[in-house]
Amino acid sequence: MSIQGLKIVTIGGGSSYTPELVEGFIKRYDELPVRELWLVDIPEGEEKLNIVGELAKRMVKKAGVPMDIRLTLDRRKALEGADFVTTQFRVGRLEARMKDEKIPLKYGVIGQETNGPGGLFKGLRTIPVILDIIKDMKELCPDAWLINFTNPAGMVTEAVLRYGNYKKVVGLCNVPIGMRMGVAKLLGVDARRVHIDFAGLNHMVFGVNIYVDGNNMTEELIDRLTSGEASGITMRNIVDLGWEPGFLKGLKILPCPYHRYYFQTSKMLAEEMEAAKTVGTRAEVVKKLEDELFELYKDPNLDIKPPQLEKRGGAYYSDAACSLITSIYNDKRDIQPVNTQNNGAIASIPNESAVEVNCVITKEGPKPIAVGDLPVAVRGLVQQIKSFERVAAEAAVTGDYNTALVAMTINPLVPSDTIAKQILDEMLEAHKEYLPQFF
Amino acid sequence: MSIQGLKIVTIGGGSSYTPELVEGFIKRYDELPVRELWLVDIPEGEEKLNIVGELAKRMVKKAGVPMDIRLTLDRRKALEGADFVTTQFRVGRLEARMKDEKIPLKYGVIGQETNGPGGLFKGLRTIPVILDIIKDMKELCPDAWLINFTNPAGMVTEAVLRYGNYKKVVGLCNVPIGMRMGVAKLLGVDARRVHIDFAGLNHMVFGVNIYVDGNNMTEELIDRLTSGEASGITMRNIVDLGWEPGFLKGLKILPCPYHRYYFQTSKMLAEEMEAAKTVGTRAEVVKKLEDELFELYKDPNLDIKPPQLEKRGGAYYSDAACSLITSIYNDKRDIQPVNTQNNGAIASIPNESAVEVNCVITKEGPKPIAVGDLPVAVRGLVQQIKSFERVAAEAAVTGDYNTALVAMTINPLVPSDTIAKQILDEMLEAHKEYLPQFF
Amino acid sequence: MSIQGLKIVTIGGGSSYTPELVEGFIKRYDELPVRELWLVDIPEGEEKLNIVGELAKRMVKKAGVPMDIRLTLDRRKALEGADFVTTQFRVGRLEARMKDEKIPLKYGVIGQETNGPGGLFKGLRTIPVILDIIKDMKELCPDAWLINFTNPAGMVTEAVLRYGNYKKVVGLCNVPIGMRMGVAKLLGVDARRVHIDFAGLNHMVFGVNIYVDGNNMTEELIDRLTSGEASGITMRNIVDLGWEPGFLKGLKILPCPYHRYYFQTSKMLAEEMEAAKTVGTRAEVVKKLEDELFELYKDPNLDIKPPQLEKRGGAYYSDAACSLITSIYNDKRDIQPVNTQNNGAIASIPNESAVEVNCVITKEGPKPIAVGDLPVAVRGLVQQIKSFERVAAEAAVTGDYNTALVAMTINPLVPSDTIAKQILDEMLEAHKEYLPQFF
Amino acid sequence: MSIQGLKIVTIGGGSSYTPELVEGFIKRYDELPVRELWLVDIPEGEEKLNIVGELAKRMVKKAGVPMDIRLTLDRRKALEGADFVTTQFRVGRLEARMKDEKIPLKYGVIGQETNGPGGLFKGLRTIPVILDIIKDMKELCPDAWLINFTNPAGMVTEAVLRYGNYKKVVGLCNVPIGMRMGVAKLLGVDARRVHIDFAGLNHMVFGVNIYVDGNNMTEELIDRLTSGEASGITMRNIVDLGWEPGFLKGLKILPCPYHRYYFQTSKMLAEEMEAAKTVGTRAEVVKKLEDELFELYKDPNLDIKPPQLEKRGGAYYSDAACSLITSIYNDKRDIQPVNTQNNGAIASIPNESAVEVNCVITKEGPKPIAVGDLPVAVRGLVQQIKSFERVAAEAAVTGDYNTALVAMTINPLVPSDTIAKQILDEMLEAHKEYLPQFF
Ligand SMILES: [Mn+2]
Ligand SMILES: [Mn+2]
Ligand SMILES: [Mn+2]
Ligand SMILES: [Mn+2]
Repeated sequence: MSIQGLKIVTIGGGSSYTPELVEGFIKRYDELPVRELWLVDIPEGEEKLNIVGELAKRMVKKAGVPMDIRLTLDRRKALEGADFVTTQFRVGRLEARMKDEKIPLKYGVIGQETNGPGGLFKGLRTIPVILDIIKDMKELCPDAWLINFTNPAGMVTEAVLRYGNYKKVVGLCNVPIGMRMGVAKLLGVDARRVHIDFAGLNHMVFGVNIYVDGNNMTEELIDRLTSGEASGITMRNIVDLGWEPGFLKGLKILPCPYHRYYFQTSKMLAEEMEAAKTVGTRAEVVKKLEDELFELYKDPNLDIKPPQLEKRGGAYYSDAACSLITSIYNDKRDIQPVNTQNNGAIASIPNESAVEVNCVITKEGPKPIAVGDLPVAVRGLVQQIKSFERVAAEAAVTGDYNTALVAMTINPLVPSDTIAKQILDEMLEAHKEYLPQFF
Repeated sequence: MSIQGLKIVTIGGGSSYTPELVEGFIKRYDELPVRELWLVDIPEGEEKLNIVGELAKRMVKKAGVPMDIRLTLDRRKALEGADFVTTQFRVGRLEARMKDEKIPLKYGVIGQETNGPGGLFKGLRTIPVILDIIKDMKELCPDAWLINFTNPAGMVTEAVLRYGNYKKVVGLCNVPIGMRMGVAKLLGVDARRVHIDFAGLNHMVFGVNIYVDGNNMTEELIDRLTSGEASGITMRNIVDLGWEPGFLKGLKILPCPYHRYYFQTSKMLAEEMEAAKTVGTRAEVVKKLEDELFELYKDPNLDIKPPQLEKRGGAYYSDAACSLITSIYNDKRDIQPVNTQNNGAIASIPNESAVEVNCVITKEGPKPIAVGDLPVAVRGLVQQIKSFERVAAEAAVTGDYNTALVAMTINPLVPSDTIAKQILDEMLEAHKEYLPQFF
Repeated sequence: MSIQGLKIVTIGGGSSYTPELVEGFIKRYDELPVRELWLVDIPEGEEKLNIVGELAKRMVKKAGVPMDIRLTLDRRKALEGADFVTTQFRVGRLEARMKDEKIPLKYGVIGQETNGPGGLFKGLRTIPVILDIIKDMKELCPDAWLINFTNPAGMVTEAVLRYGNYKKVVGLCNVPIGMRMGVAKLLGVDARRVHIDFAGLNHMVFGVNIYVDGNNMTEELIDRLTSGEASGITMRNIVDLGWEPGFLKGLKILPCPYHRYYFQTSKMLAEEMEAAKTVGTRAEVVKKLEDELFELYKDPNLDIKPPQLEKRGGAYYSDAACSLITSIYNDKRDIQPVNTQNNGAIASIPNESAVEVNCVITKEGPKPIAVGDLPVAVRGLVQQIKSFERVAAEAAVTGDYNTALVAMTINPLVPSDTIAKQILDEMLEAHKEYLPQFF
Repeated sequence: MSIQGLKIVTIGGGSSYTPELVEGFIKRYDELPVRELWLVDIPEGEEKLNIVGELAKRMVKKAGVPMDIRLTLDRRKALEGADFVTTQFRVGRLEARMKDEKIPLKYGVIGQETNGPGGLFKGLRTIPVILDIIKDMKELCPDAWLINFTNPAGMVTEAVLRYGNYKKVVGLCNVPIGMRMGVAKLLGVDARRVHIDFAGLNHMVFGVNIYVDGNNMTEELIDRLTSGEASGITMRNIVDLGWEPGFLKGLKILPCPYHRYYFQTSKMLAEEMEAAKTVGTRAEVVKKLEDELFELYKDPNLDIKPPQLEKRGGAYYSDAACSLITSIYNDKRDIQPVNTQNNGAIASIPNESAVEVNCVITKEGPKPIAVGDLPVAVRGLVQQIKSFERVAAEAAVTGDYNTALVAMTINPLVPSDTIAKQILDEMLEAHKEYLPQFF
């Protein structure tokens, strides 16, 4: 940290999420003195970067904090001497995500942009870029923490640990905080009274125990969830299909919204196919929302985060990100669920793999709390997604076609090796420009 | 062992397989002096027991070995002082298997009578009976080995270890020997020159390395398998759909025929639905074959195993079973692939769980050869079937509806919790008479 | 917890430590409303119980808190409805400890009252009593937490988990807090700024990383410790012999004072033999201190914890114990080093064994923070003490002579099986009255 | 393998053991067609190499097998195209071993030339040479197997796996075969009827189960061993001190002779100190034996292995080595106890570490048989020796003084860090010429 305060670099700074992040830093300025916030983007994103950057400057000015907002297309310059680097970029932008979702659907397969076939391609596009950033960081800011929000966050964290050989990385997701908020709402209590033992993988995380004021309420919560009176805990971007009461009662733990893709595959597929015909895929919906947001951002009179942003699907995002950075910076030793090296916390996952688990957040990073093992019933699925993440990361690094085909085939959403090949081939072609390692 | 020779008890002795077993014992009489072979069945199977039993007597007589064939409906009497007990019974007979296959198909789901929804119900019907046999064995022949062929053999072995608390159990399957024969044929070499490192679970076993004369030929074999010139390694009862060359090349190990259910789910489903409309389900095909076999068996002039039996799908069965018993009896310390307690042989499976793995066969039973871990790509699926087996076994023992629903939902062939519930409910009702623990 | 506040039961309430505990509860009354503190002892301890109890009453009165001090010899009555049970008794009193220390010395072996031959006998005497308390607790206060200070605390925790099958147990020791205080003093900083990653076993715990304000200072600390300027981190009851600089630098972690018994066996033995001839064994020194303390306690004008108590060797004891109870009661989720079930926190120790490790303290008890694995260099010794603890606990439960002999022989302080047998035989005889399971 | 037969290279070919090896190859010529046996030595050993080499030639001639004996000082030339490389050299010859034994004794510590302080120095001298050979092998005969007899064989195998990154290595020892012979003699049966489940580390191996004709006789054997009628199972080079009956009965497994160093440290020390005063250390005894052997070898009329060689302490050596090579060459898949990568065979040892365990010997090398875990009682000591081996290997590779001091201090035979330092310093000086990495 430089003497004057922290230097934070946000790669993909032109993202529509940025105002939340800026708001988060402003709110916490007293304990987290960010003196420079560098927003970095690529030439294709320059226009958005400027729009968002100007809004950020207005927000900072209004708040009256001495935070310097810097806009640049020069990533290496930005990284120099950084204390924290956050990554929230999207290789190929929403257009690529649309393909991630639409191409699989043509073959009757859910695209699922993180742990599904779409996620495989998002990983193939993203991992080489992240590893490139890591290479720069090792040179320009070797002590900086990488806080990654870029999806697929689990696969990316795995790749940074395993292939980037960089340990100061944390993967972040708003699913856990969303589950906590949802539980609080369902039980009618303040979210601060709710604690959840999270364990699993990114977008494959379970609430193993749910507490209110430290009292274990897991069973009561599941009773509520399955009693019909509550619509369940879900997220804006995943349609709520409910759970079979007996299934949840038998499981005895709380799945995350993304589990619906795996435990309700056929229902989710039907829903997505229907949506594709009507409202469009999630990417298309998001695209429209984003366009509207940027219209708002352009308004020179806007100097706060506009409330419409919360519809975007990134709720609690800023809270999670800024909380994490604040706790690292201040060695707070509070508990947050993040993606980090397992280190024995979850028994059946290799020690060196990335998991999403409650951690004590220290100046030396997250220290996972040991959970022993996940319930037998879910251990297989979790392992399967970990297998998928690892093979996908290997394919991203090697550019090997067969490895990519294995990753696609073993994904639980993909119903055969032949369909896997068809989707793979069409998607490789469609994303060609972002996948030099395969061509 | 009594002084006069071995006493072997075959529960489900009226099975159409029995002549193979008898042939196997006759062939090995010199090193495996079976003096009494007790064929046990239930009253409903008495007619078949008599038909098979008389054939067995004729076979023994023709061979000129002093093996006493005993037919009985009194299981406890048979078990008294037994040295080996083999189990090959089928609770509910082929009629139950038909339901196991047909009901899921109504919901667009493969029945799969071992590791699929059908296998769940076969387990729910079978495990209580096996545990009852174990109870008798502990009392009447506590030193006897249980050699189980009854499917789902993996789940049954797991249940005997975990809930029967009986360690002298081995689960047996003809898939590994079939793979070895298939490899030999494909490579054009004598099967005795082929060795395969088997590892995985029952009907979820992989050939991790394939050797000819001790030389590792795995890569060559996969090249052959994917070159189009060979139709692959399959088994009579699983249609051969081929593999995507790139998938197999990326996997780098040899799947077993049952892996098609998981890596080619949609194709297998289409095939099964088609078959159901034309030739009938596998159970119906088998039923017809069995009826024909019993017609043959009735012939008082038949005194050998009729060659038609090999079409039944149980090829190499006798060889595997008798080989195993012979090696235990003679402390042969040769290597055979069986289902036994893992004990560290496969890293990501719990030590106390059942696995299918190459073992040194000793008088104290099978000692698994350590394989380290399975390739990352398949670790997840294997774990998932193990989760399924364990939850299913728990449901069989407890009769808990929710646990059964979890087992059904986590099965990789079942596409949602709601479909799981529908299949479960209809199957519980259909098999009611064999599932007292649930009613 | 009853509506009126907490009921806490202290078994071995007549201990000289009790005033510290009482002071701790008084100090924390606002957040930890102890309404009843039951001090329980056995008839032989009645006199001391009364002396300590009267002092406790005077302390409470002076502090003006409505805490009810109850003295009783009826353990079952005390346990009824308890919220927390603390155990700090000593089977056979200091006389037994003297034998634990003196008999081994006759054979040229350090007695070491916790992880040495003395500890074995302390365990053999204590474990049956603890398991008896557990039996009562399961009946009379099944939701209560057992906070055990009785040594050997690691072995006792292991026994409660493994043989008592009671999970709500925490073993407590003042070694970690002592190390933290020592580090703070050595580095000249306030102890609240120091954080240590503790991992190992009771009296075999290491400071794996040492932080000041979250910054890792392990290397600097070891440099200081080995530079000759500092006398090291030690405890009142273990003579400070210093460490070979190169050894500590090579180890790269901070040993605890008890490690001197294992890494400096010959020096410690020489020191103890010398002490036995002059000042007496530690037990004799403590006996004298205790007698003096009880003289003080008798003074009807004394209504605070007398400062002399700190010399007793139990410094920070009250702080550790009351902190733990307060954090459990209030679900504080702060970090404390305690003895609890490993659950994967330390890789090479079985998941179900007791370890001493930093934990997040919640209403559901301590949740260990995963440390991955200990450095290779110390893994063996830690495992060896765990082997010793487990075999000793088994001997305590079974009363099997050979098992006890194995425990004694494998202890790293004992130089041969024959000397082990000699010590074992003499000690069994000497402690006969407290070891009914062996006679 | 060249078309004309096998090329075997023996590094340290001038060893007095060589005639046994030659005899072993002659005996097995039919199944193991060794066409070239290259005996390699260093210039200082040229005289011995010639003496032994000439004897080998006479032996081969007498046997009438077409095995070409080649003597050379050019290691690289010998390695070119080799099929098997055996290593049996001794860096610093017996003079160095004398120091390994004598210097520690001066400080009241057993030297123990394999797992003790002497073994540490043998490792420090040997590992760099072995890693140099590995470097040559990777270049000149990358498919060759390294069969290492050079002690400390466990530490050397660990170093080759971990630092040489060469997987085709097997460590060999005659302790297991000696134990088997001893058991056979004790039970009065032919050794071929005896089978032992070996598990542990080199010179720290246990007979976990002992069978005669496949029947488990472990308990009977231990009864015999402790009944006083039998003197126990020992080896020529370790004095037999007997075991405390209760200790062995409690242990329930068979220790190896080297376990006496750890379970009877004080007795062994006294014995060695006495021996040093009278017959001399083991190294001195061996030196005398060797001199006598070489006198015999010189006799131009000698054309067989002289029977006196068996007194040397290497009994069964030839059998173990040639058996292993024959089984690898012929893919025999028989069971032999060797040092190889653990791979899960022993639960508490890391998968990638070397262990000594029963293996199935295949053309692809040894495949360990899973033993689950060692009994709790010995797990600690085994782990401790593994810690020692690993830290020692690291010191050998890095030449780091502090690492060497840690290795010396954690050795169970060394009573304090200060004595460790004294021994270390004196030995470093004494062996200076063979330890360039430290100077
Ligand atoms: Mn997310
Ligand atoms: Mn089968
Ligand atoms: Mn303590
Ligand atoms: Mn040896």
